Amino acid sequence: MDYYSSQITKLIQELSKLPGIGAKSAQRLAFHIINMPMEQVEELAGAMTGAKKNVRYCKECFTLTDQELCPICSSDRRDHKIIMVVENTRDLAAYEKTGKYEGVYHVLHGAISPMLGIGPNDIKLKELMQRLQSEVEEVIIATNSSLEGETTAMYISKLIKPTGIKVTRIASGVPVGGDLEYIDEVTLLRALEGRTEL
Amino acid sequence: MDYYSSQITKLIQELSKLPGIGAKSAQRLAFHIINMPMEQVEELAGAMTGAKKNVRYCKECFTLTDQELCPICSSDRRDHKIIMVVENTRDLAAYEKTGKYEGVYHVLHGAISPMLGIGPNDIKLKELMQRLQSEVEEVIIATNSSLEGETTAMYISKLIKPTGIKVTRIASGVPVGGDLEYIDEVTLLRALEGRTEL
Ligand SMILES: [Zn+2]
Ligand SMILES: [Zn+2]
Repeated sequence: MDYYSSQITKLIQELSKLPGIGAKSAQRLAFHIINMPMEQVEELAGAMTGAKKNVRYCKECFTLTDQELCPICSSDRRDHKIIMVVENTRDLAAYEKTGKYEGVYHVLHGAISPMLGIGPNDIKLKELMQRLQSEVEEVIIATNSSLEGETTAMYISKLIKPTGIKVTRIASGVPVGGDLEYIDEVTLLRALEGRTEL
Repeated sequence: MDYYSSQITKLIQELSKLPGIGAKSAQRLAFHIINMPMEQVEELAGAMTGAKKNVRYCKECFTLTDQELCPICSSDRRDHKIIMVVENTRDLAAYEKTGKYEGVYHVLHGAISPMLGIGPNDIKLKELMQRLQSEVEEVIIATNSSLEGETTAMYISKLIKPTGIKVTRIASGVPVGGDLEYIDEVTLLRALEGRTEL
């Protein structure tokens, strides 16, 4: 049903493949893009392919970055003896926004979920254990307070305990079932302060 | 605050310039795009620049198209003696989806709004009047039932009346204040069937 033109239809189709963008929003976005100055459209398109081409995992913490080492891992103003374990890069960003955490991170890219068939080998857990061979004093587990997040926290804790490294879990000031990235900074900070040893 | 990397931050910034996309959705979209296969990212980026580069106004009805004449204006299965006047291309698409309208269109690209300082010369009204010099039997005014849409309908009707061409207005089965593109097909059809002469 090409009442527009093949190029507009194509753009609407591509946009509606994106998560959270329905047919109506795709249409609105497409017309908006067509009405944007050419320069801005090229800026947007270039940002997409540029990010896709150049973004990779930090070889240390596995966050997304366009360097070999992310800005946090390569900073000497961060305490590299404290590692906060998060499920994804958005959760890392949420803690960075508090501006109060001075350690480094480890991004698991997921959580253990027997229901979804995601096991310990499907997330960056082996890579975390390898990092513990250098001088690490504390591992703060900041996975979500969902069933998967808690399962993952327990699993990691049992794995690390034998090494003698201190393992803590952020306080459950974080609402149960809540996604870290949607939680306000004050709650995140309180949860960090109230962390308990596992 | 570059806790990601300049390329991801740039992508998030560009995405959040789009209408209806807040900071959180831009972030989600950016990570989704980074995780898409390269081919698909290039497809999406190419669709944007392609549409922007090639899409223009149909020289007859002023809808957006990538041809000189849109598929509707160049079709000989459409009745070119009946012109439906709509505010924008999305409204045209809404009527096309009913599959029951056989005339052609004229896209105004806006509506008269003294409040917003949009006058008759700011929409494709002169162009509509030029079209009436060829053989036209009826002009159906299908602007929205908002204040601006009604104002525009009245204005056009007064302009066309002296030419002797029949001018009709779609019935107000369309909910008052409603935006055509959000209205279901049945309502749109009923409004078309119940149109009255102005
Ligand atoms: Zn890193
Ligand atoms: Zn046309």
